[in-house]
Amino acid sequence: MTPPRIVERVAELQAWADAERLAGARIALVPTLGALHAGHLALVREARRRAERVVVSLFVNPTQFGPGEDLARYPRPFQGDLALCRDAGVDVVFAPPAGEMYPPGAQTWIEVAELSRPLCGRDRPGHFRGVATVVAKLLLAAKPHVAVFGEKDFQQLALVRRLAADLRFDVEIVGVPIVREADGLALSSRNVHLDRAMRAEALALSRSLDAAEAALAGGVRDAAALLALVGRELAKAPHARVDYAELRDPESLAPAPARLAGPTLLALAVRFPVRGADDPSACVRLIDNRVLQPESLEECP
Amino acid sequence: MTPPRIVERVAELQAWADAERLAGARIALVPTLGALHAGHLALVREARRRAERVVVSLFVNPTQFGPGEDLARYPRPFQGDLALCRDAGVDVVFAPPAGEMYPPGAQTWIEVAELSRPLCGRDRPGHFRGVATVVAKLLLAAKPHVAVFGEKDFQQLALVRRLAADLRFDVEIVGVPIVREADGLALSSRNVHLDRAMRAEALALSRSLDAAEAALAGGVRDAAALLALVGRELAKAPHARVDYAELRDPESLAPAPARLAGPTLLALAVRFPVRGADDPSACVRLIDNRVLQPESLEECP
Repeated sequence: MTPPRIVERVAELQAWADAERLAGARIALVPTLGALHAGHLALVREARRRAERVVVSLFVNPTQFGPGEDLARYPRPFQGDLALCRDAGVDVVFAPPAGEMYPPGAQTWIEVAELSRPLCGRDRPGHFRGVATVVAKLLLAAKPHVAVFGEKDFQQLALVRRLAADLRFDVEIVGVPIVREADGLALSSRNVHLDRAMRAEALALSRSLDAAEAALAGGVRDAAALLALVGRELAKAPHARVDYAELRDPESLAPAPARLAGPTLLALAVRFPVRGADDPSACVRLIDNRVLQPESLEECP
Repeated sequence: MTPPRIVERVAELQAWADAERLAGARIALVPTLGALHAGHLALVREARRRAERVVVSLFVNPTQFGPGEDLARYPRPFQGDLALCRDAGVDVVFAPPAGEMYPPGAQTWIEVAELSRPLCGRDRPGHFRGVATVVAKLLLAAKPHVAVFGEKDFQQLALVRRLAADLRFDVEIVGVPIVREADGLALSSRNVHLDRAMRAEALALSRSLDAAEAALAGGVRDAAALLALVGRELAKAPHARVDYAELRDPESLAPAPARLAGPTLLALAVRFPVRGADDPSACVRLIDNRVLQPESLEECP
């Protein structure tokens, strides 16, 4: 494979995008924080299916990390990411320095109001403001026809869809299903911080999603009963600290009704201790989710 | 002149812009609230100098009006605006219904933090959030190479420049000097609400700018002395209620130093009663400004 072109400046990326568009090429953008894994590569494959040119951005966006969060510890294996992009047929790797995305005196912020409030928004104040702002900048920098996001960050995907529709971005937002290890653990750049014991405990997330889905298939429609089941599964991981385990509307993220009637998001965020870290309070926060589908099951009794 | 194409839908405007760009044409956008006057036509002339295709948007953006403001009373002479656009050689008039700019469930807002706070931002909470949000939407809808704004709304222009730079819009923001009546009154769509006596009083704004400029030319550099002079000129209008008269940095809008050293914005906002209105407390709020240039005067004694 030809190595991807590495671009650090917005103006250079915009000039490239203009030339590609003039030549009639469709452009797909895959925004990432880097530390690429098979989940990201699934996004790149989807991008290649939908466009002639694929841009992957590698940018650990500082404004989406809160004061006590893991910005400093976030992995940044640039050369490895580059090799993965080359093997995946990526055309451009956009790796801007922070000052390129936040010029001196930058003071413009984008808020997607209601969608930013629950779930991760409650636990991470300012996180989604940082996400919305940087995604808008990346869309304006790469000028894509389509942008591809993973469904693991389900709230982020819902928010980006809303942002693009509200601000009238001329771009299609595409979600790609979660990629999991063979034993069910959802891929995450943060999984590297789990030791063997914590990795075993982290399976509680996917197992609780499976349990809820199985109960639903067995006819359980009561939201409280499903959440109790999820709580019991998560409690099997003695070190898990649950930030949230909630049932919500997949589009508006409004709380689900007491009895599930339509597609319903089951979303989890759970922290585990990072043992052996300099900071004894360090933890890794994992998220996972599944959209439960009560109707389709009712159609096939 | 060929009448302009009237477009009401964002998707249609985007498709038009894509086709023009593919054909190699440069596009200029002139965002307005309609009720066009010679000040707007100066923007259109500047737009035509800089691009092959000119889009004028006519949209009375509800989100930039506060609860007690003049949204309902804002003039909307659509047919007259259209005739002026035709005579000025405008290619596209973009006149979206409100639901096209704010789709159902819209919840995305753009804030330009520091620049939104002083001057009109203090008097009109939420105004600049509405301006920033709608300008971003209009830029994304018309996909212009250049967007042209009047210097009369000086704070708006500073904010739009910042917005475009911060979010990395690939667009050039151009300011056009204030257009005035022969006697000095800055053109405004709101001047129609002034009766003869109030129109005469409204000359206090431009006269106070002239007085400050003359004092500066005479060697006055003391900010307090210049503002006292402005206050005396404004006091000659017995019905004027001054919202602000301030000296500020033209780019950051930070307060000017006690002794003027570089280019300094003198910005005014003054309200006059609208006599004969249904609401006896109705008033018209006029703004005006000038960038004072102490250095250039020092160079030519």
